[in-house]
Amino acid sequence: MSVNPVRALLFDTFGTVVDWRGGLIAQMQVWASAREVQADWAGLVDAWRGAYLPSMDKVRTGERKWADLDVLQRDSVEMLAPKFGVDGLDGAALDELVHMWHELPPWPDAVEALRVLRARYVIAPLSNGHVALLVKLAKTAGITWDAVFGADVFRHYKPDPETYLGAVSLLGCRPSEVMLVACHASDLEAAADCGLRTCYVARPLEYGPGRTLKSPPPGRFDMTAADLGELAASIG
Amino acid sequence: MSVNPVRALLFDTFGTVVDWRGGLIAQMQVWASAREVQADWAGLVDAWRGAYLPSMDKVRTGERKWADLDVLQRDSVEMLAPKFGVDGLDGAALDELVHMWHELPPWPDAVEALRVLRARYVIAPLSNGHVALLVKLAKTAGITWDAVFGADVFRHYKPDPETYLGAVSLLGCRPSEVMLVACHASDLEAAADCGLRTCYVARPLEYGPGRTLKSPPPGRFDMTAADLGELAASIG
Repeated sequence: MSVNPVRALLFDTFGTVVDWRGGLIAQMQVWASAREVQADWAGLVDAWRGAYLPSMDKVRTGERKWADLDVLQRDSVEMLAPKFGVDGLDGAALDELVHMWHELPPWPDAVEALRVLRARYVIAPLSNGHVALLVKLAKTAGITWDAVFGADVFRHYKPDPETYLGAVSLLGCRPSEVMLVACHASDLEAAADCGLRTCYVARPLEYGPGRTLKSPPPGRFDMTAADLGELAASIG
Repeated sequence: MSVNPVRALLFDTFGTVVDWRGGLIAQMQVWASAREVQADWAGLVDAWRGAYLPSMDKVRTGERKWADLDVLQRDSVEMLAPKFGVDGLDGAALDELVHMWHELPPWPDAVEALRVLRARYVIAPLSNGHVALLVKLAKTAGITWDAVFGADVFRHYKPDPETYLGAVSLLGCRPSEVMLVACHASDLEAAADCGLRTCYVARPLEYGPGRTLKSPPPGRFDMTAADLGELAASIG
């Protein structure tokens, strides 16, 4: 039996490459300080993230027609903000909050690890963000991708198979030649169902300090790495 | 009247960024030398390029269902090769010739100019090549793009408006915020019809030395540059 070599690495983005929670809270605090607004920013961010999957599920199930993540996130934060002490947000303020998702800090190991991996593999994000968001995110963070696969390229959100198989097809690869790198087991399981290889990366701080996240059982995925730096040291 | 600033630059690739003719002839000569085959390589390359637009027109008019450039180019070279003294090409040999389009040399000014322009603009190819081809081309040439728009993303070939407007949409821009940079007037005219801005770049050696190419009349396009280096010096 021979095993196809991995030619391309796809990366989940929010959580795996960038720290959405720390980045959003920090940006909101700066934003609030300039407006002299006080609120439970961490609470709002966690609730916003809580609304993320359900908002995409409405598109995935056909309950809502295609809308990109900016549109979905804007609806969610407009609904949630008053519950956390932020009232009377106008359209411009909502846009500012939504655009905070376009400029999130990479985890400390991410930029250098991706640079190393890019020398050997084709690397690209496969994210539920849209291309414009992902391009802005990468330019802000100093990340260089070989291609950018946003949900709007496929007009499907993960874990729909159209996303994984669409990226594989655009890369001119077989599924087994592509590995998804992600910190969410559900994303990796959906990729594995499409025939992709999988690498689980631990991001214990994704939901903030002091949280205990369940690690997948050994052998569940093709690879497991403590962070992207360890992955780069292993296969880069 | 205010004018939107240009936020993103799209680049035609074959001819504008890379030297397809010089690159193909050089690769074919190496390939032929290893196989002790003699043929009119320049003649074959020019005929192959001559078949390029007609082969895509079959897809554009619906005469042929969607096929990527590798498939189209393979059919063309299989038909043309015997006319230039190359007989009996098997499947592997045809694939090798087709893949020469994936590794073409950038014009001498291109890599540095794109590096400069990327610091200020979002830059991406908008090509009739497919994503996998464009990724390989960029990695081989040492070009870094912010995103990669191949014809397979849109399942349309330029000058279909779906390509220009599709890229504009994925970039999250208005058409007037995006400028197409190309050495072919027909490409630029189609982009202008979609509301994009246009920059004509002269590539007098695209079809080989000693050819006189007609320059577009002054004022026909928004900008004109002698090469990408001049464009970078002007707006980079």
